[in-house]
Parts: sequence; C-alpha cells; structure tokens
Amino acid sequence: MLGDVVIRRRSVTALAGGVGGAKLVQGLDALVDDLTVVVNTADDAEIYGLSISPDLDTVMYTLAGIADPVAGWGVVDETYTTLEAMAALGERTWFTLGDRDLATHVVRSARRRAGVPLSHVTAGLASALGVRARLLPMTDDRVATMVDTASGRFDFQEYFVGRRHRDEVVGIELDGIEDAAPAPGVLAALTEADVVVLAPSNPFVSIGPVLAVAGVRQALAGTSARRIGVSPIVGGQALKGPAAQMLASLGHEVSALGVARLYVGLVDVFVLDGADRALAGAVEDLGMQVLVTSTVMREVEDRRRLAAEVLAAADTTR
Amino acid sequence: MLGDVVIRRRSVTALAGGVGGAKLVQGLDALVDDLTVVVNTADDAEIYGLSISPDLDTVMYTLAGIADPVAGWGVVDETYTTLEAMAALGERTWFTLGDRDLATHVVRSARRRAGVPLSHVTAGLASALGVRARLLPMTDDRVATMVDTASGRFDFQEYFVGRRHRDEVVGIELDGIEDAAPAPGVLAALTEADVVVLAPSNPFVSIGPVLAVAGVRQALAGTSARRIGVSPIVGGQALKGPAAQMLASLGHEVSALGVARLYVGLVDVFVLDGADRALAGAVEDLGMQVLVTSTVMREVEDRRRLAAEVLAAADTTR
Repeated sequence: MLGDVVIRRRSVTALAGGVGGAKLVQGLDALVDDLTVVVNTADDAEIYGLSISPDLDTVMYTLAGIADPVAGWGVVDETYTTLEAMAALGERTWFTLGDRDLATHVVRSARRRAGVPLSHVTAGLASALGVRARLLPMTDDRVATMVDTASGRFDFQEYFVGRRHRDEVVGIELDGIEDAAPAPGVLAALTEADVVVLAPSNPFVSIGPVLAVAGVRQALAGTSARRIGVSPIVGGQALKGPAAQMLASLGHEVSALGVARLYVGLVDVFVLDGADRALAGAVEDLGMQVLVTSTVMREVEDRRRLAAEVLAAADTTR
Repeated sequence: MLGDVVIRRRSVTALAGGVGGAKLVQGLDALVDDLTVVVNTADDAEIYGLSISPDLDTVMYTLAGIADPVAGWGVVDETYTTLEAMAALGERTWFTLGDRDLATHVVRSARRRAGVPLSHVTAGLASALGVRARLLPMTDDRVATMVDTASGRFDFQEYFVGRRHRDEVVGIELDGIEDAAPAPGVLAALTEADVVVLAPSNPFVSIGPVLAVAGVRQALAGTSARRIGVSPIVGGQALKGPAAQMLASLGHEVSALGVARLYVGLVDVFVLDGADRALAGAVEDLGMQVLVTSTVMREVEDRRRLAAEVLAAADTTR
C-alpha cells in the first residue's frame, strides 16, 4: 500500500487527556515515526505527598504497552501491597495506586523535588519504559483544574475520583493557567507538524486546559498542519467520564455537534461516529469537513484502524 | 514470682538505635507496662525523596512484631515490586525498600511535609501498628550523622548502606545537633523513669547522637532512675554493624570496657557478656556495678530473658 510509507514519514502531533485519547495515540504511534503527544497536566495532583500526573501516565503506560487493558489507566497485573499497608497505618487511601504505578510517582516526585522540570522527568520516564513517541506535558508550571459544583468547589481528583464525578458541574477554573508557559517543544510541535490530532478526550478538562496554555490556541489556529478532531461523544454519551454531563450542565448541546462547536477555527476535519451520521451536515455548517466512521475503540486493532482513517482523512479531505 | 508484678509497674525508658537495641526493647516491652523508647534519628535520611527513619522503624516494626526476623530491620515477608519498577525507570536503587516498608515512608513523608512533627507522626504510625510502648524520636529537628573517612565525608546511609561501612572512620560529626531540641517528652522520660536502659546499640552513631541532644546527657546524669547500660561489644566484636571498627579507628579500646568508658557518669550498672567476664574488675573500677550474663539475643526468648535480668539488676545491684 502506497499510503503506509507516506504516513510513516509524516510529523504528527496529538493533544490528549486520559484513556480515550491514549487509545488513539497508541494507534497513531503504530503508524507514524514522528509522533509528539502534548498531554493535559491540569488534573495533576499531590496525593500522599507524591506528584501524580494521571494523564501523562495513562498515555505513557499505554504507549509502553503496560496499561491495564480493562481500566485503561494504571499498570497491568498490579498489586496493592503498599496501598494496603498505608491503609493499615491509618491513611485514607481514597486514591488507588498500585505498586508498579507507585514507582513512577516516587521517582517523579524525587526528581521534581530536586528541581528537574516535569518535561525532563517525563522524557526520562518514557524513555526508560521504551516509549518511542515524544511525550510533552502541556506546561512545566502548575495548573490545577478546579471544579465548581452545587456541593462546592473541588480540585479535579477530588471531584473525579474522590466523589466519582457525581456532582453537577457548574463551572471550571484552571488555577494558575495565566502564569503557565507551554513546555519546551509544545508550540513548535503544533506549528511544524503535518497533522495535528485532537484526540477523543474531554473538551473541558482534558483538551481545554491544553488549549488554554499561553500560545497554544494561537499556534493551533495558525498552523499549516491539517487539524483533525475526534469526537469523544457518541450518540449523545461519553464513552468514559463526565464529558456528556459537563456539556449539559455548562450549557452546550450534549452531542458530537456540541463538541465540534467548541473547536471552531481549530480543526479542519471533525470525526463523527456512525451513530452520529445525522449531525454531519450541521458540523459541515461550522466550516469543518466531516469523516464518519466507527470511533469506538473496543479492541486494540480499533486503535490502529481509527488512527489510519484519521491520517488518511488528513489527505483525502483536503 | 514476686518480681513480675513489681517489674510491670515500673516506668522504664530505653535509649536505642537499630537492630540490637530493638531486640532488648522488645524484651522490655513484654515485661513492663510503662515503657518509653527514645530513638536515634541522626541516621534519618531523605532517599528517593522520602523521609526515612531507619532506627525508629526498626524499633517500631520489632515492637509491632512485623520486623524481618533474619535481617532485623524491614518488614517480614516483604515484596519489592515498587523498587524493581523504580530500577526499571532508571533510578539507582541502592537503598532497599520493600513494598510494606515503603508505606511507612510515604505516609511519614506526606505528614511531615504537611507540617506534622516527627514525634506526632511516629506516635500515629506506632499506634496504628499496635505498638503499646511510647516511641519518641530523640528530636523533631534535623540531625545528620556525617562520617569522615579516608575516602572522604559521607552521610550516614551512604557510608553504612551505600558503601557497606567498609571505610575506616576517622571522625563523626552530628550536623545540626547544636540546634536540635529534645522531642516533647524525652527529658521527662529520663528524669521521671524508675529505670533507664542504654540498649546494646552503637555508642557513636546510635546512643551517641541521643546523648548529644541538648539536655539529654544532663538529664541522664542527674536522674534518680537506676541507669543500666548493655554492651554492644562481645568478645571484642560487634554483634552487628561497625561499632568495633569505630572503637578502633576513633582511638578507643575495642572491647566492652572501651564502651563502658564512654558511659562513665551515665550508667550505674554495666552489663557484660560472659565472654567478657575478665573485664568486670576494670569496669567496676570505672565506678559501675557489673552484671555478667549472656547478652547475645539469638532467639526471641533471649530478648525477654535479658530484659528481665537487666530489670532485676536495677534492684539487686542497688
């Protein structure tokens, strides 16, 4: 197939958050030699005194082939010896950390505390795990997603894990975003790429924070790369997480169209699931081209298939 | 036996360092209801970004009945999942930490970083593990044993674990000792006890730092308690660790007598092993009474037996 060589040579940058985004990124990684992933860090947290970067880790573990295939996050075949011992010591172990996963947090915390920027730490960890793609945190600075709900304001992990995203979200604030500089390489990865992919991640708390970092939205708006967004909403529902509830409670249409509207001016092509075929015309009216395909990545093969279709769309829809 | 009730009611304070001291402390714990252990913290270290308190943990795990019976330190039936994963991430894992042990360090580090003093953290951990005795760090302040050798100056864990105490020690400095206040309860535990026991721990790097904390030496010199020291040197050799080498290279006699000389004015009774019976006269010449018995605690029963003899000596030798 002629396409394969052409695809491999392309420079592709993906913006991604958690599990859904990581799956598509893994598909891209199998198809292109020059892949950069810019990852949300606004849901990073200090928990048990450790620096936790959930989205970076999900992408890293997925690309390293060691992610838990059922949960999508964490490491496969985990044990929980330390967490159980922490509980026995009276610690409230509300945030699950496996023993292998814990190594990442201990090492990251030690290196960050020694003054190493998150981007350097991330590159070292990813390299040690055999990840070939370039993994970039959106910023080396602290940004914290704060979630306003009817029950009060929570930091993201408390809202998401601690309270199992059960609260209606009435507002989202990205604490520290004004002072956050893009991590080294982030802007260049957007302006110099052939293709930029907005992975099927939550538009408010995964893609949104990346776009909100100084210069990122402008770089994406002005790049010559083909920009392709993949809807995280299928048939009006999020495949995982609270994206659908957030669309509703924040006043957006709860559909792939609602997501597409958030990306006007930022993507050239929007990928809809077959279930949302009826929305294609409305998305085109936003000035985007549309690819309709199966976006649900149930099996590992689906990741590569969808990635190939996304990359092909960068050509065929031009 | 008449002695048992009398012993139980007594208030006993032990000064202790690592493995040997912990064994005798466990024996004391089985015999007295009011036991306080003041533990060396000068070999505490920050390793992998975590607050490690080796002597406190050895005493705590021993009293909780979960210490590794072979090594004497660490937790029994350990696994090393996290440490192995840290090595895979490129970390130099020179300091062995098991998964259960790691929980202690993660919880301690988090609480200390949140501003909780080491003494409060220690009380919480010990209580959670079911330790009945009162465990006190010698100080809540940072003191660091620095070891001067022919190969240069090392912090204690680097000398002891990293270089396996192979270097000849030409000097010991307790960094921070001038500014270290005794932890709450330490001085009272010395002045108000019926019996104070100097456990068979290294006189330079275990007992020495405790004595060097402001007010401790004076409290011990002035207390009305019966003060009993147990030699960590038997037949001219340390049962564990570098005490014998240190006696030699720091210019002391390498024997129980050499240790006894360090404790002149601080103990009323000095306990010698049967192997050192010939030294009894010389120790008595230092103004101490002498108890000769078997001080080697090979079996768990030896701990209680030696503890009972130490406590009995507090009476019979008065």
